Amino acid sequence: MTTLRLALCQVNPAVGDLAGNATTVREWTRRAADAGAQLVAFPEMMLTGYPVEDLVFRRSFIAASKAALDGLAADLAADGLGNLPVLVGYLDADGPPQVNGDAEPGRGARNAAALLHGGSTIATYFKHHLPNYGVFDEDRYFVPGETLTVVRIGGVDVTLTICEDLWQVGGPFAAARQAGVGLVLNINGSPYELKKDDIRLPLVRRRAAEAGATIAYVNMVGGQDELVFEGDSMIVTAEGTLLARAPQFVEHLLVHDVDLPTATDGPPADVELADGMRVLHRHLESVPAAPTDQRATGGIIEPAADEAEGWQALLLGLRDYVDKNRFPSVVLGLSGGIDSAVVAALAVDALGPDRVVGVSLPSQHSSEHSREDATELAKRTGLDYRVEPIQPIVDTVLANLSLSGLSVENLQARVRGVILMALSNQEGHLVLTTGNKSELAVGYSTLYGDSVGGFNPIKDVWKTQVWQLAKWRNAEALRRGETPPIPENSIGKPPSAELSPGQLDSDTLPEYDLLDPILIGYIDGDLGRDGLVEAGHDPAVVDQVLRMVDTAEYKRRQSAPGTKISMKAFGRDRRLPITNRWREDG
Amino acid sequence: MTTLRLALCQVNPAVGDLAGNATTVREWTRRAADAGAQLVAFPEMMLTGYPVEDLVFRRSFIAASKAALDGLAADLAADGLGNLPVLVGYLDADGPPQVNGDAEPGRGARNAAALLHGGSTIATYFKHHLPNYGVFDEDRYFVPGETLTVVRIGGVDVTLTICEDLWQVGGPFAAARQAGVGLVLNINGSPYELKKDDIRLPLVRRRAAEAGATIAYVNMVGGQDELVFEGDSMIVTAEGTLLARAPQFVEHLLVHDVDLPTATDGPPADVELADGMRVLHRHLESVPAAPTDQRATGGIIEPAADEAEGWQALLLGLRDYVDKNRFPSVVLGLSGGIDSAVVAALAVDALGPDRVVGVSLPSQHSSEHSREDATELAKRTGLDYRVEPIQPIVDTVLANLSLSGLSVENLQARVRGVILMALSNQEGHLVLTTGNKSELAVGYSTLYGDSVGGFNPIKDVWKTQVWQLAKWRNAEALRRGETPPIPENSIGKPPSAELSPGQLDSDTLPEYDLLDPILIGYIDGDLGRDGLVEAGHDPAVVDQVLRMVDTAEYKRRQSAPGTKISMKAFGRDRRLPITNRWREDG
Repeated sequence: MTTLRLALCQVNPAVGDLAGNATTVREWTRRAADAGAQLVAFPEMMLTGYPVEDLVFRRSFIAASKAALDGLAADLAADGLGNLPVLVGYLDADGPPQVNGDAEPGRGARNAAALLHGGSTIATYFKHHLPNYGVFDEDRYFVPGETLTVVRIGGVDVTLTICEDLWQVGGPFAAARQAGVGLVLNINGSPYELKKDDIRLPLVRRRAAEAGATIAYVNMVGGQDELVFEGDSMIVTAEGTLLARAPQFVEHLLVHDVDLPTATDGPPADVELADGMRVLHRHLESVPAAPTDQRATGGIIEPAADEAEGWQALLLGLRDYVDKNRFPSVVLGLSGGIDSAVVAALAVDALGPDRVVGVSLPSQHSSEHSREDATELAKRTGLDYRVEPIQPIVDTVLANLSLSGLSVENLQARVRGVILMALSNQEGHLVLTTGNKSELAVGYSTLYGDSVGGFNPIKDVWKTQVWQLAKWRNAEALRRGETPPIPENSIGKPPSAELSPGQLDSDTLPEYDLLDPILIGYIDGDLGRDGLVEAGHDPAVVDQVLRMVDTAEYKRRQSAPGTKISMKAFGRDRRLPITNRWREDG
Repeated sequence: MTTLRLALCQVNPAVGDLAGNATTVREWTRRAADAGAQLVAFPEMMLTGYPVEDLVFRRSFIAASKAALDGLAADLAADGLGNLPVLVGYLDADGPPQVNGDAEPGRGARNAAALLHGGSTIATYFKHHLPNYGVFDEDRYFVPGETLTVVRIGGVDVTLTICEDLWQVGGPFAAARQAGVGLVLNINGSPYELKKDDIRLPLVRRRAAEAGATIAYVNMVGGQDELVFEGDSMIVTAEGTLLARAPQFVEHLLVHDVDLPTATDGPPADVELADGMRVLHRHLESVPAAPTDQRATGGIIEPAADEAEGWQALLLGLRDYVDKNRFPSVVLGLSGGIDSAVVAALAVDALGPDRVVGVSLPSQHSSEHSREDATELAKRTGLDYRVEPIQPIVDTVLANLSLSGLSVENLQARVRGVILMALSNQEGHLVLTTGNKSELAVGYSTLYGDSVGGFNPIKDVWKTQVWQLAKWRNAEALRRGETPPIPENSIGKPPSAELSPGQLDSDTLPEYDLLDPILIGYIDGDLGRDGLVEAGHDPAVVDQVLRMVDTAEYKRRQSAPGTKISMKAFGRDRRLPITNRWREDG
């Protein structure tokens, strides 16, 4: 056995910020060295941030990534850290980037990891399994690697893997067993999902058993546009023992001494395995000596309960969106209802009350209790509160156009949108949208009305989950001896858009405790009508809901589609990250 | 040699309209039979429409596609057409649809073609090459086929292929040569791109040479959300001779007698080729007798010139979006400028003047010539013209909020958006957006202002192309002895948003003849800054433009992003077609 002190750096990179991300690597490598680490690992695509999407097609971006890697290796050596092996994810290419599927076989852009040592890259690995489902499009961007790299570090055979390699049976982990490695490093940009932490540890255990080796799993943390990375880095032995586990949603340096099998044979030759995968061997002669201080233990932090976890994910996603895009503050409309109350509470938790402007935008249909609930929320949270009545503007429009019914309802929501956007333009706030996922799914909102805004913290949160989060947040406040931020009346009253006299959501929609399970079955479960009815839902309600969902796609897009006459039009096929600090001109 | 009379049905399916699409197959098969056809082919995914995107994940949709195929085969037989072999594209699955990349190897949803004969399916083919670039995401939706199907029809060995199979070297066409086939049927859902017709014929010729066989290429026609299919169906011999070619942008029945090698050996056995592809053989005993009338020739229609082609593509995309979504009419703002004039002319060409409402929305900054140009356009095109001054509403907002500068400019555009959306709500028109691609690229527009609307016909058209199209359309009118629809003054005057006194686009942007080539290099060419400067562009202008493009991504999306906490949130990973008539409840 050899004991290696591992340092897993659970940090928060930003897409495109090559210089800033490299600085993060240097700072955290220094911290790791100070803690006596002998091997350091950073997340997937650490240098470029993740996901970089269509930036992959820019040769200049690939060149910048490679140059940043070389510069980082030299800088680490100049920092006196050259002796410490550091694994870092980056974007590479061993040929022109794939365009229109026309990469040469085995050549193209690569989701890559480099082991830096002695001022240069001493081993490279290209991600083998490329995810292309859900939020992932990696078949579009990368070509898969076909080589396993094994590096003997301090007498232990260590292999390098990236993210999705862990999620599929076979491939690098099976090859790692054949190659007889002692440790698998697995670097990740693995987005948060509710309850994903419940499957991550069992998954790592299964793969550790498949590899017959300890796995050191490091994940990034932070928000990147619509994705949140939670961290949850960990070390698990081949037998399935959890040695250390980092907390979620915060940057963390996980340092742990791990006992690993000492390689006893001579330096093995490169081989080709039965499934065609080649195994390259490298030997790293000089590494930091084993520390002589007491044994380092990273500790085990259990993941948070579901509501706490959801709140932290939404908070982090919002904070990083605002801060990485350098907005000084946010503005949102406060109706007195539950959705805007939860978004306001999240914003205050994320940014502090001084960076949150809440605007009450009452009309003639706004009830007294709604205005009071909005005022009460402002008082409890301490946000910057204002009142801008919309009726004079609505009346002027109605004096100039002949409108009735739904048109007048939508008009009120759009006048509110105009006011919020004007405040944004005039004062520089980011407008927060407050529509929940249930509303978005069935199209119960006004295009360019309540749906305006630059970021919607609860876009992916069902209405019934919004209530759960509100109750959890208030209970958490009581637990801490603080004032609950959300007025109880906002939680308890029946939901209403208040765009016509006495209006309730339930005039138009099924009650949310009936609606949400149908939406979840249809959207998350891909169940059809028959499957939903078999699951026990009322057929008439199912038909009503499905029709609403199927006709609301346009509202969910907002941005007008238009005929493509070029393969390179903006849209799905050309989506750059919003949070993107990389610039051609530096 | 055997002469077969082929009928290629260049028709216009709609996504999700299984019943309507099946009816189209029956009607056109009847027409083909009346013309003496012995073999009929319809486009890729004919029964479901294309692309179906996330509908693939719905098991109920796959089951409906299979049931529609079986019903169609039976109906054709009942129509007395059972003896005529008909190739039709559809959605199949030989296992559960792939979800999160977890399909069993070789099992999952299939982009499929079925040869119908005698009331049932007698041969099936699964698309081999799945495109996953540009507008295509087929790796996300389908698993590739690994089998070539050869059917002996009237003594000729015929093989079945689908779309992308044609665009890549190797695979089914190379296998077709090894299998010694005489005819390759290739069915397509191949989206229009400017100048794509220039590469299509050479491509078909190369592939015909690779297969050593005649290719019968049939493509769909019509608009589907952002895609337009142009048709351009054709028949090309192994030697590269173009035998017949259908017109673009219209439905067309291309009937042609083709001389093909007669298979002389006995029925060959199924084999496995060197690259692992299996070849299945089928024998179709009974087909319609060779016609005794004179030889059928489909004729050769040359593709249109670029401007004519572009105009027709935009016209068809707009018309099908409006009609397939069943909008009675459209409404758009008329500023007197070139963009709204071109969109209005397109709309009148597509829908007729009675279905187009044009609204002049003057402010205090609107020049006299702008109002006159809008009026003149209305007079020339005959559309329903109205004037709705925005100043009273703008003044009311300004009386209630303290705004200045850019905020006041954006306010005017947003008030126009409010009025157009109110007219849409009140009267049922679809709002057309009129921002060109150059504006969208650099973010020179107002969020929720001039960018509101349900469809933007010129979203993918650079500003310099807008002028070219306007000039072409006017010249075309003169050629036909008609009044040019677009006022010459709208074409000739310098572009202005008219949101502040004396404002011109050139105050903010480089001249469009400088701007567009940089945008094309950056966006279409994936050139970086250095590449653009090397290409001769002014470095200062390049830096200005690139920074604008890189920071305009949010405006291009409009719909607020929000933190995902579920892999199945709406968004890129869950985008249903907008034009989608398929309903769970029938």
